[in-house]
Amino acid sequence: MFTHATNVRVRYGETDQMGFVYYGAYALYYEVGRVEAIRSLGITYRQLEDEGIIMPVVRLTSKYVQPARYDDLLDITSVIREMPDRLISFHVTIKNQADQLINRAEVVLCFRNMHTGQLIRTPSIIQQRLANYFD
Amino acid sequence: MFTHATNVRVRYGETDQMGFVYYGAYALYYEVGRVEAIRSLGITYRQLEDEGIIMPVVRLTSKYVQPARYDDLLDITSVIREMPDRLISFHVTIKNQADQLINRAEVVLCFRNMHTGQLIRTPSIIQQRLANYFD
Amino acid sequence: MFTHATNVRVRYGETDQMGFVYYGAYALYYEVGRVEAIRSLGITYRQLEDEGIIMPVVRLTSKYVQPARYDDLLDITSVIREMPDRLISFHVTIKNQADQLINRAEVVLCFRNMHTGQLIRTPSIIQQRLANYFD
Amino acid sequence: MFTHATNVRVRYGETDQMGFVYYGAYALYYEVGRVEAIRSLGITYRQLEDEGIIMPVVRLTSKYVQPARYDDLLDITSVIREMPDRLISFHVTIKNQADQLINRAEVVLCFRNMHTGQLIRTPSIIQQRLANYFD
Repeated sequence: MFTHATNVRVRYGETDQMGFVYYGAYALYYEVGRVEAIRSLGITYRQLEDEGIIMPVVRLTSKYVQPARYDDLLDITSVIREMPDRLISFHVTIKNQADQLINRAEVVLCFRNMHTGQLIRTPSIIQQRLANYFD
Repeated sequence: MFTHATNVRVRYGETDQMGFVYYGAYALYYEVGRVEAIRSLGITYRQLEDEGIIMPVVRLTSKYVQPARYDDLLDITSVIREMPDRLISFHVTIKNQADQLINRAEVVLCFRNMHTGQLIRTPSIIQQRLANYFD
Repeated sequence: MFTHATNVRVRYGETDQMGFVYYGAYALYYEVGRVEAIRSLGITYRQLEDEGIIMPVVRLTSKYVQPARYDDLLDITSVIREMPDRLISFHVTIKNQADQLINRAEVVLCFRNMHTGQLIRTPSIIQQRLANYFD
Repeated sequence: MFTHATNVRVRYGETDQMGFVYYGAYALYYEVGRVEAIRSLGITYRQLEDEGIIMPVVRLTSKYVQPARYDDLLDITSVIREMPDRLISFHVTIKNQADQLINRAEVVLCFRNMHTGQLIRTPSIIQQRLANYFD
């Protein structure tokens, strides 16, 4: 299991007139979570794209437990539970500065050749870096 | 069963550098779909808020089947399969102008008293307007 | 002078917790305005990109006169006052359904070759379609 | 003169299909810049709202010098050149990690009583904290 945590500060433009974070803004937080998780492995998503690999999201499941509010400092924990093969799945937990559970999500992505559009397996560089976390 | 369809044109700002609609932008499309579905019943979400009722999203499930692209004219079909009680669930199907399936989602919302925060049942005005669609 | 008007309905996700449209969301409205203005000339921005031309924004000036609110049906009027040459300038006026002035803006864009990045002049197809409006 | 600098990492959802940051996304960066600038004075915008004060943007001028790209780590410098009275003006300069100038902007905001909507002067707490920077 691979676990990584990072923070985001809620921006005013991410709230809506209910006074809460708009439900669509969480996609940005999940993105920050997984991008920083990958960076912590010594890989950047930018590098993957430079090598012609894109990672579109194929499935998203999100549970909104409590509202996040403007200026909250959110903790975003991203977990990879299984060694990715054709798909990579991030389990995300978002808590606020008072350690209250805000949101739980699963984001599943695939890998595609940017030029042909073809589905590909998880790049070996990712599998190598993750190998230590999965015996 | 209640069904309603509406259109959105993909904006440039909703695409990302993959050249597709960003996965987080679909939340806006689902919102347009359900807001217009409710409007077609003769109710507006604005009115509900004026009466002190808010409708936060509690669960979202989304399946990204094919990418939507800039300037696509998307058809958003929102279906209410069951008479709402404590929760209201919208099943959304998004197709492009070539009738290709782009995305399927389920968005579940609750009703809350804006002032107390308390959960409430589906307002009777909504149930009355939906009654014809559910025998 | 070339003038074109179109409508947008304010989305919930475009509001912020002040209860108004977030100041950054107007960029999307200006975009809808100019894209539909160009479409009314029989050209689409998508076609321009297919021919290797991109139109980045180089300057934006925006004056927020009155707040726009959720569900407002905004009228977006885009005016081209001068035949574009190296730059194209859109003067935008946004009013709400009560004909109240909401926002005034000027958006200036350039044209670039997508592959070389080089600045180019306004494509002749645009100049031809605009010729009737400028004697 | 009061100067404050902070960083933002460009998110994927902030890019568009040109491969650059969407011109509308800069509004979020300016917001982060001024919010952190105010925080560095020991005041939070959240507190101001708790005291019934909102700060709507009244004018925005933005010059896009060079494109920002995905994953860029941007430096956002916000400068208050004059002691604010009825209006507060932030001059913003955005540079990328290679110290290239990306964007320059001026964002002017007013202060309003949240309940009455009335224009008010700059709250004295802000003036006091800024006093040291303006002799």
